[in-house]
Amino acid sequence: MAPHAEPEALTDTSSVVLNDPVLTNGNTHAVFTLDDVLPHRQKSKPPATGVAAFSEADMFKSKGALKKPKAKKWDHRFSEESKARSASSLKNAMRFFKPDTISLCGGLPSSDYFPFEEISAKVPVAPEFSEAETAVSGKTFSTGKHDAKDGKSFLDLSIALNYGQAMGPAALVRFITEHTEVVHDPPYSDWDIALSAGSTSALEVALRMFTEKGHYVMTEEYTFSTAIETVTPMGCKMLGIKMDADGLLPDDLDHVLSTWDESARRAPKPFLLYTVPTGQNPTASTQSLERRKQIYALAEKHDLVILEDEPYYFLQMEPFVSGQTHGVPKPFKPVPVADFLKNLTPSYLSLDTSGRVLRLDSFSKIIAPGSRCGWVTGSKQVVERFMRHQEVSAQNPSGYSMIHLYNLLEENWGHKGFLEWLMYIRAEYTRRRDIIVNACEKYLPTEICSWTPPKAGMFHWVKVDVTKHPLYESRRRADGSVDYATLLEIEEAMFLAAAAQSVLIARGSWFRAQRGSDTELFFRTTFAAAPADKMVEAIKRVGEAIRTEFDLKEQNGNGHAR
Amino acid sequence: MAPHAEPEALTDTSSVVLNDPVLTNGNTHAVFTLDDVLPHRQKSKPPATGVAAFSEADMFKSKGALKKPKAKKWDHRFSEESKARSASSLKNAMRFFKPDTISLCGGLPSSDYFPFEEISAKVPVAPEFSEAETAVSGKTFSTGKHDAKDGKSFLDLSIALNYGQAMGPAALVRFITEHTEVVHDPPYSDWDIALSAGSTSALEVALRMFTEKGHYVMTEEYTFSTAIETVTPMGCKMLGIKMDADGLLPDDLDHVLSTWDESARRAPKPFLLYTVPTGQNPTASTQSLERRKQIYALAEKHDLVILEDEPYYFLQMEPFVSGQTHGVPKPFKPVPVADFLKNLTPSYLSLDTSGRVLRLDSFSKIIAPGSRCGWVTGSKQVVERFMRHQEVSAQNPSGYSMIHLYNLLEENWGHKGFLEWLMYIRAEYTRRRDIIVNACEKYLPTEICSWTPPKAGMFHWVKVDVTKHPLYESRRRADGSVDYATLLEIEEAMFLAAAAQSVLIARGSWFRAQRGSDTELFFRTTFAAAPADKMVEAIKRVGEAIRTEFDLKEQNGNGHAR
Repeated sequence: MAPHAEPEALTDTSSVVLNDPVLTNGNTHAVFTLDDVLPHRQKSKPPATGVAAFSEADMFKSKGALKKPKAKKWDHRFSEESKARSASSLKNAMRFFKPDTISLCGGLPSSDYFPFEEISAKVPVAPEFSEAETAVSGKTFSTGKHDAKDGKSFLDLSIALNYGQAMGPAALVRFITEHTEVVHDPPYSDWDIALSAGSTSALEVALRMFTEKGHYVMTEEYTFSTAIETVTPMGCKMLGIKMDADGLLPDDLDHVLSTWDESARRAPKPFLLYTVPTGQNPTASTQSLERRKQIYALAEKHDLVILEDEPYYFLQMEPFVSGQTHGVPKPFKPVPVADFLKNLTPSYLSLDTSGRVLRLDSFSKIIAPGSRCGWVTGSKQVVERFMRHQEVSAQNPSGYSMIHLYNLLEENWGHKGFLEWLMYIRAEYTRRRDIIVNACEKYLPTEICSWTPPKAGMFHWVKVDVTKHPLYESRRRADGSVDYATLLEIEEAMFLAAAAQSVLIARGSWFRAQRGSDTELFFRTTFAAAPADKMVEAIKRVGEAIRTEFDLKEQNGNGHAR
Repeated sequence: MAPHAEPEALTDTSSVVLNDPVLTNGNTHAVFTLDDVLPHRQKSKPPATGVAAFSEADMFKSKGALKKPKAKKWDHRFSEESKARSASSLKNAMRFFKPDTISLCGGLPSSDYFPFEEISAKVPVAPEFSEAETAVSGKTFSTGKHDAKDGKSFLDLSIALNYGQAMGPAALVRFITEHTEVVHDPPYSDWDIALSAGSTSALEVALRMFTEKGHYVMTEEYTFSTAIETVTPMGCKMLGIKMDADGLLPDDLDHVLSTWDESARRAPKPFLLYTVPTGQNPTASTQSLERRKQIYALAEKHDLVILEDEPYYFLQMEPFVSGQTHGVPKPFKPVPVADFLKNLTPSYLSLDTSGRVLRLDSFSKIIAPGSRCGWVTGSKQVVERFMRHQEVSAQNPSGYSMIHLYNLLEENWGHKGFLEWLMYIRAEYTRRRDIIVNACEKYLPTEICSWTPPKAGMFHWVKVDVTKHPLYESRRRADGSVDYATLLEIEEAMFLAAAAQSVLIARGSWFRAQRGSDTELFFRTTFAAAPADKMVEAIKRVGEAIRTEFDLKEQNGNGHAR
């Protein structure tokens, strides 16, 4: 166990009265910055360290946050399933737990029988983040079974490896609460957070909270294929809203909702909007602040619930400049945290005066997918329903994940180091984005391929002019279009041609919200996975495959296709 | 990284022809023992080590196992939701992945950006298992990011911390497959396994696979409260089957099914049986082999699907002898593995000729709940449907869990050490069972409290003669009974009286399968959680609380109540 990154007393100082953080900018609420975290901690109760101890965001919010108006109520939006959930009898009994209580109630195994004495990890120190630098200067953080009892930590193996409450251990609830205030500063007071077993799990839970069989779920015209594959078996349908490079179009959303005909549609007017506002999957579109405000205003007008799925939120990039590749200085040079945060497009959570947003965050894309850990943020009422479901599904993220994340985030990096890590991977993904887009400019046949360079995320979405395919001409109907089967046939041929060149790309039709309604041809590539040189080679082969498929002239070896 | 507990070649030896294991006992199939594991491995392909590599139990089964007859088909039992699930587009694309393929398809982040260079754990070596011995002689096992590429391991951080296939990484699929053959030896060939994110998660998935709104799920009259709390919001009902100390009664099960009246019940004849056969929660009842065979025969007769939930399977104990406490020798002395296995009551999985059992195993009670990892075993068709759901919910256990479990089970203990660990914790829980039952004999008022000493698990279930409560007499109706509200009132008073003495017990009504139908009074205690001296003190206080509540004479300070 190493010193805390943000040292503080390990004793209860709850009797100290909190001062308000400084009011700034004429805002009616206080603005909580990184500099306020430590003073606030020093005046607050430390996180509880009992096994399965209860905690909530309110325990760790600033006084300013707690003074804001409350969220609206959402009873009318919950599904029958969600409304029917009751609190776990056994977890609820913990209300009667006092410090001297002996519990014979819950079947929580004694930590005597956890065959782990200590777990450790070697991790990078901020801001020297690369693998090579970690190998040299990384630090090892260790956690023993009884560190909390010994006053050495707020989370140890005896806590993390046992059953817990559905929101997660207090030590992590505190970290995420502080992070949320610093990054999003939600405009209402009674928001809460709960750790999730990853956003895929959280999305399923959220969908079951707000949908009934036969409902429509609104989303971008092209959306995360897993979301479609989650919604469909529930007996619901995705309703694709038209989009441009800035994401979904408010006018189309308003039009769909304002003209909804329940009997013609055989479904009630939809109220659930699933959106990936930043670095959208698959299109990489990123909603501007203006766009978000317009959509939020429509959510207010039509009383929507917004599922804000933001795995790529922190991967917001400098614009692409043709022919240039942003470098990543070694050792890495982060900008001041305040500048980084200022330049992020504000989240829906930060605009949400009503508490109608349930935001899904994930460690998958910013730490590692194998953490199977994320968190949800929303109104206390909504997060409570979320936790009632989580208690009877994933329960909690893995205790090993939580220990390793706690050591990384709290003991090693602290909030500042975490945000600097986010700057680092953003820089790395920016470099990778530049490499793939430059390769596309060089190797794809731009007479039929077009794209908007991504401003966020991990994906590059390429449109291919399907009308130029030989099969298209031969199958063209009176109105100039072809049938869906032909479109799919061309798409598959393109996919297989790339696969024959040993490159896998993702087919656009997989992401079509209303599957089977495609009229255009797209493919998605990711710049997250392959090494830089392999990405370039892969794009070169994709270019060749498309040229062959579309009967185009071979590219001039020297040529810049654009 | 330490040497493998069961050393083997790390190279592909797939060209070597497998020999059949020795046929024994005149069985028509081979019996696969621990001694067969290593020779079988040496003749088989090693587990795949690619990121998100596909694997299945068939890759690791003995030739004898593969020769058995196939399971029946279960299409008629799957829910509409389960039938509507399609394979993940993105995961499915991996079919086209060849060793030289560059994938731009799935958004799998490069392991370059996993901020973990190495993770380690200090764990006990077999058979020196206690905390004190681990502190002295425990070993540390470490895993680096690229150990698999470096030929040092079959699972490393670059694999475990990335996205994976729904069955889990091949290295763990192999271990669990071998374990399943050694312990259960299922009598059909095409069984498969998938890691789960714990049995609570697996149970939810399984229920959604086999139920529609309005269905009944059959279970023991008293059952795991979380199972009730999972079923109810789905719009299903639990149907309690009568039970005795050997668990649910075949006659009642047969009667319920044979006399089912769809119109009177307003529900189709049920076919899903949820059962905890060993150390049942909450009653600790354990079905004998004879009982299991009777129930399985009824499952064949009525075409049931059995969810066999077995977290306590390995905690099968020596009988309780009044006044005695089984000791745990230090250092621990395990019996030969074959003797341990021979004395376990066979599982439903081992009796399942049709493939109608989906067995849920969990590391929660035998390693640590925080692992949030278990596995399911069933027919390939059923496990495939399970995985299709898991892909859009928990996806996988945490990669940190998988690394730590892999190091513990595969690199450190091997199958033998794992089974010795199970003997060790069984011995510890036997000792604890003895302590709590002896304390109950000493401190509970046996004129109104009765019980069957547990033969397995973590729970002790105590019946309290509610007719002796003062309120009961005053509220007695013409038929001699009282209304449910009175029963609950007495139960609550007893719970609160114990809580007032700083002891938490679990109320019997929480576990009533058909909630609200209680006619008797029970409470459940666990001997898993509290230290031994605290358990005794707690039972003493519970005895005092009951005496006060029931207006009984105070116990003679010296007396043994029995």
